Amino acid sequence: MKLSLLFTKTSKTVPSDETARNAQLLIQAGYIHKEMAGVYAYTPLGLQVLENIKQIVREEMNAIGGQEVMMTALQPRELWEKTDRWDDKKVDNWFKTKLANGSELGVGLTHEEPIVDLLSNYVNSYKDLPIFVYQIQTKFRNELRAKSGLLRGREFIMKDMYSLARTQEEHEDLYEKAVAAYYRVYERLGLGDVTVRTYADGGIFTPRFSDEFQTLSTIGEDTIFVDEEKKVAINQEIMSDESLQKLGLNKDKLVEKHAIEVGNTFHLETKYTDALDVYYDDEKGQRQSIIMGCYGIGVSRLMGVIAEHFADENGLVWPTSVAPAQVIICRMGTEVEVVKKAEELYGALQEQKIGVIYDDRDARPGEKFGDADLLGIPYRVIVGKKTLETSVYEVKVRSSGEISELSLDSLIQLLRSENS
Amino acid sequence: MKLSLLFTKTSKTVPSDETARNAQLLIQAGYIHKEMAGVYAYTPLGLQVLENIKQIVREEMNAIGGQEVMMTALQPRELWEKTDRWDDKKVDNWFKTKLANGSELGVGLTHEEPIVDLLSNYVNSYKDLPIFVYQIQTKFRNELRAKSGLLRGREFIMKDMYSLARTQEEHEDLYEKAVAAYYRVYERLGLGDVTVRTYADGGIFTPRFSDEFQTLSTIGEDTIFVDEEKKVAINQEIMSDESLQKLGLNKDKLVEKHAIEVGNTFHLETKYTDALDVYYDDEKGQRQSIIMGCYGIGVSRLMGVIAEHFADENGLVWPTSVAPAQVIICRMGTEVEVVKKAEELYGALQEQKIGVIYDDRDARPGEKFGDADLLGIPYRVIVGKKTLETSVYEVKVRSSGEISELSLDSLIQLLRSENS
Repeated sequence: MKLSLLFTKTSKTVPSDETARNAQLLIQAGYIHKEMAGVYAYTPLGLQVLENIKQIVREEMNAIGGQEVMMTALQPRELWEKTDRWDDKKVDNWFKTKLANGSELGVGLTHEEPIVDLLSNYVNSYKDLPIFVYQIQTKFRNELRAKSGLLRGREFIMKDMYSLARTQEEHEDLYEKAVAAYYRVYERLGLGDVTVRTYADGGIFTPRFSDEFQTLSTIGEDTIFVDEEKKVAINQEIMSDESLQKLGLNKDKLVEKHAIEVGNTFHLETKYTDALDVYYDDEKGQRQSIIMGCYGIGVSRLMGVIAEHFADENGLVWPTSVAPAQVIICRMGTEVEVVKKAEELYGALQEQKIGVIYDDRDARPGEKFGDADLLGIPYRVIVGKKTLETSVYEVKVRSSGEISELSLDSLIQLLRSENS
Repeated sequence: MKLSLLFTKTSKTVPSDETARNAQLLIQAGYIHKEMAGVYAYTPLGLQVLENIKQIVREEMNAIGGQEVMMTALQPRELWEKTDRWDDKKVDNWFKTKLANGSELGVGLTHEEPIVDLLSNYVNSYKDLPIFVYQIQTKFRNELRAKSGLLRGREFIMKDMYSLARTQEEHEDLYEKAVAAYYRVYERLGLGDVTVRTYADGGIFTPRFSDEFQTLSTIGEDTIFVDEEKKVAINQEIMSDESLQKLGLNKDKLVEKHAIEVGNTFHLETKYTDALDVYYDDEKGQRQSIIMGCYGIGVSRLMGVIAEHFADENGLVWPTSVAPAQVIICRMGTEVEVVKKAEELYGALQEQKIGVIYDDRDARPGEKFGDADLLGIPYRVIVGKKTLETSVYEVKVRSSGEISELSLDSLIQLLRSENS
């Protein structure tokens, strides 16, 4: 992508209607556009980051046998009445709408009911189970307040996966597979070291705890207590002597931290499958209940978390795995030979399938450097008169500020190794 | 994908609540699931087809400089009042909803207004234009009747692109570039020979005609008159001596045909940009209006059109470019050597990055053949005892029924050539 062609521009002004740092950073760098509080559009660079996160999540869900589907936003009332989740008194953040004939519809805030309804067409026998099914989808939640940018949206992107198991043992196995896949997702997103499995309230369907994945961060609104040896934590919400005893945690070893939830996994027991009348026949022909788990990752929230977590005073700092491009070429000067050299490098990197932005604008060096920092591209390469003389490229690492001089081969090698 | 693991199953029963053949075929083959009239979920195979169509559209829009964005479903009232498209009396197929505080919101049925509003942040000078921007997005339209399966949905996937030009000449150039990209899309989807550019009503913003892309088909609800020499047509809706004269078409050379619209392109003049107060400064610093075009392709509709257009009495027949897999391996028998041979072939094709479904179920040959036909996979390969003896594979072409015997190398060569 040539920067002269990209329709977005960076802005030096902090948007006055945003208090969340993630939204400020992303708007200033031209990654997102605010439609209204909690509702954001994604510009080309922002969409690329979102797609990169989605793809990592997708690959890890596929790796444990997840089958991807796409459910609908429009939801029929009848389905949600079966589980008593239609009434606004029971679920207080529905967006609702109406068909032309007056029938009320919901606008999808979650998808347990429709997923189970879908699967009911195909599940009859023990041979049809187990199943992991997931989607990466826009969800709509009518939040009273939405001041946290991408961290809490009214319209947002989420990966939600569901497991259907025949026995408790099978459920536990699927559940831990999903948890392991979650660790791999956070690892690949660059959040592995700071994300910890955290016991939390399990909801109304089970006496068991759920698991939250909490990224340790000063921006977090949650308070958790971490056992750094065991690498697990407990959410303040369920902190009690009884909980600690159940979990085998020692109060004295726990350290209080701020954190932000970037995923959660729940035991749903047989609540939804029973309510929607979906059972399976076992090997003896006996009808049995189906045990369900559900597994959420906030994809657009993760984009906000990553943006805010890694940023510095000069702007965004994307991990390579999610950056809209790995490298930005800053052309310094407009001399024919310099332009030619820069175009050559751009072509060479594209040929190597390395994601590259080429700042081909006739702008001052300071503006180009400022934009490269604001955009948060992992590597910045300068092509100027000095490059012509020395045949080496000055490369700056965005995260550390470290500068080195590399030959074309070494540069390509560096970028390719980051890419794999 | 091993068929034993895929959670969907085919069904011999035509769904009783569907009159549209595309929906019947796709539901029976397990590609889609009906949530309500005009609202369908996509199962793993159906999602793959949808993604294949999206990717073809995306590549062709990118090739003419299109920049992809993702707009929001939730829409603020104020924006649409500026163009007088909020009132239900003006636009009669809105889905509307409300924020918790009572403010009315729209659920996006089209995106001219929010796109122009987005671009207004970045467009000031002649240097910022021209722009091609597009999205591939779920749209919501409150249709009174929705009985045509994927051909007319209440919730559906559409690619909508917009061009912003500085001069009429530049607009014409962008418009024809988009039209050329549309031809390439239909060509790649296997509909090139039967899709014709058709003059149609231009809407209320311009005296000019719009262009529809109409696929000739008995399933079409539109009537068009085709000049087969010139390879253009005119929609019955605007058929008049005056129109024919304007277009330089001779009534005697026109042939009446049924067709279904698979895309359209409109001249929007300066209606939206003026209404939303978006202008640019030319080289002399003079404020100028921006000329807009818009370009739609119904992605999920195309899935329905392709399904219905190519199907035969045995089920779906996907063109290779959109099929969920290029080839299905039918294993005949459960003998150890046969299973081993089939697994080997499955592995070899996967290694070649060829999309392959492996029917590893212990089912009767008739059931496997029936399902392979119903699913519409372009090539079917049998692995049975005979394969072990002869070392050649029996390959059937789904569309023609033609059967040949191929060595592994020839089979891979055939499938790879189809893939490119």
